[in-house]
Amino acid sequence: MAADCPEAVVLISGGLDSATTLALAREQGFDCYALSFDYGQRHAVELDAARIIAAQLGARQHRVLSLPMGQLGGSALTDRDIEIPCTPSQGIPVTYVPARNTVFLAMALSWAEVLHANHIFIGANAVDYSGYPDCRPQFIQAFEGVANLGTREGIEGKGFEIHAPLINMTKAEIIKLGLRLGVDYSQTISCYAPDERGRGCSQCDSCRLRATGFAEAGVSDPTCYNPAR
Amino acid sequence: MAADCPEAVVLISGGLDSATTLALAREQGFDCYALSFDYGQRHAVELDAARIIAAQLGARQHRVLSLPMGQLGGSALTDRDIEIPCTPSQGIPVTYVPARNTVFLAMALSWAEVLHANHIFIGANAVDYSGYPDCRPQFIQAFEGVANLGTREGIEGKGFEIHAPLINMTKAEIIKLGLRLGVDYSQTISCYAPDERGRGCSQCDSCRLRATGFAEAGVSDPTCYNPAR
Repeated sequence: MAADCPEAVVLISGGLDSATTLALAREQGFDCYALSFDYGQRHAVELDAARIIAAQLGARQHRVLSLPMGQLGGSALTDRDIEIPCTPSQGIPVTYVPARNTVFLAMALSWAEVLHANHIFIGANAVDYSGYPDCRPQFIQAFEGVANLGTREGIEGKGFEIHAPLINMTKAEIIKLGLRLGVDYSQTISCYAPDERGRGCSQCDSCRLRATGFAEAGVSDPTCYNPAR
Repeated sequence: MAADCPEAVVLISGGLDSATTLALAREQGFDCYALSFDYGQRHAVELDAARIIAAQLGARQHRVLSLPMGQLGGSALTDRDIEIPCTPSQGIPVTYVPARNTVFLAMALSWAEVLHANHIFIGANAVDYSGYPDCRPQFIQAFEGVANLGTREGIEGKGFEIHAPLINMTKAEIIKLGLRLGVDYSQTISCYAPDERGRGCSQCDSCRLRATGFAEAGVSDPTCYNPAR
């Protein structure tokens, strides 16, 4: 990669959307620093997927940082006492993690400023999303404002651009884009409650959105589901 | 405290400003959940001060959460290879920690949402501050926007108010206010590089701002300085 490539911090979870986002950032010529979080999620096996994806898609570096959100609780994703629902939710579901994308973007911003990177990518998606308030365009735009008011780089430098390139795409469109860019979706994990081998439950919101996306894209789904569940 | 008191998460560092902020929030009738961070700061002895202050000022709970900002570096406060300056800085100083208040407020927001608390207090101060971009009113206001766009509580509930009551006060005014509210400033630590007993260096930006503040307030400074430094 040429020395003058712009640098970007790219949030990757190990899931389909963020893998596609990383592939897109790479295609657009960004030198990518991938960032994942061990935040007490019950599906921490997704971090193994994130490591594979970062390597496959040529991230210059991949860091996994620990965050204490699991200690705060308040979500089915971080609190084992709250069950992952098997039926579609109305409104904001119990898998919503309080202020997760605000925390993730804040940490990405901190690393970006240290790296002198002016770009942050997040795979947030407002169309086929799961009803999360922090996956909407107005949230991303507001966070960009915070990033440029609350940092040295925002005041004295070139500032920050928060990219959420999938925000208005359907899951089917995301999958088609990723396949064109060479994303190996068999390595991604979307399930909120995968087994220890990373196989999906096929029933949670995230598994259902993913399966519907592959069906609508008209391509076969390489996802492994646990047949016993 | 009455059952219907509004609840607030109050960021406390162990320093003078945040102790005064907690005292003020208590006086205003808030039931306070104090929050501090072990973020790799070289002056982690301030966390002992935070524990004492939280207890003295009647916080209902005090949590100290670990954050991996020290792993990212980029500041004299978290990187032992960068010296704390002994002379006043021009512009944004090397003690600036990239996006620190964005990260701290994001974590406070996450806890506040779990607690169903609608208020967050931060002791940011834009007058006698050290040149940090994330201590300015426009930053606080922008973060409040993010908080209300990126959370369930912001969409479906009463939303969040970010209070920065000291933002336009001088250090002398803060000290006078705190003394009126009964803050025991002998327990607070402001120094960026205190010794292991928490005694200040008397030379860093933070020690100098504090000493000037006490002088201007016309009250004696209970701060312990290390005479050998």
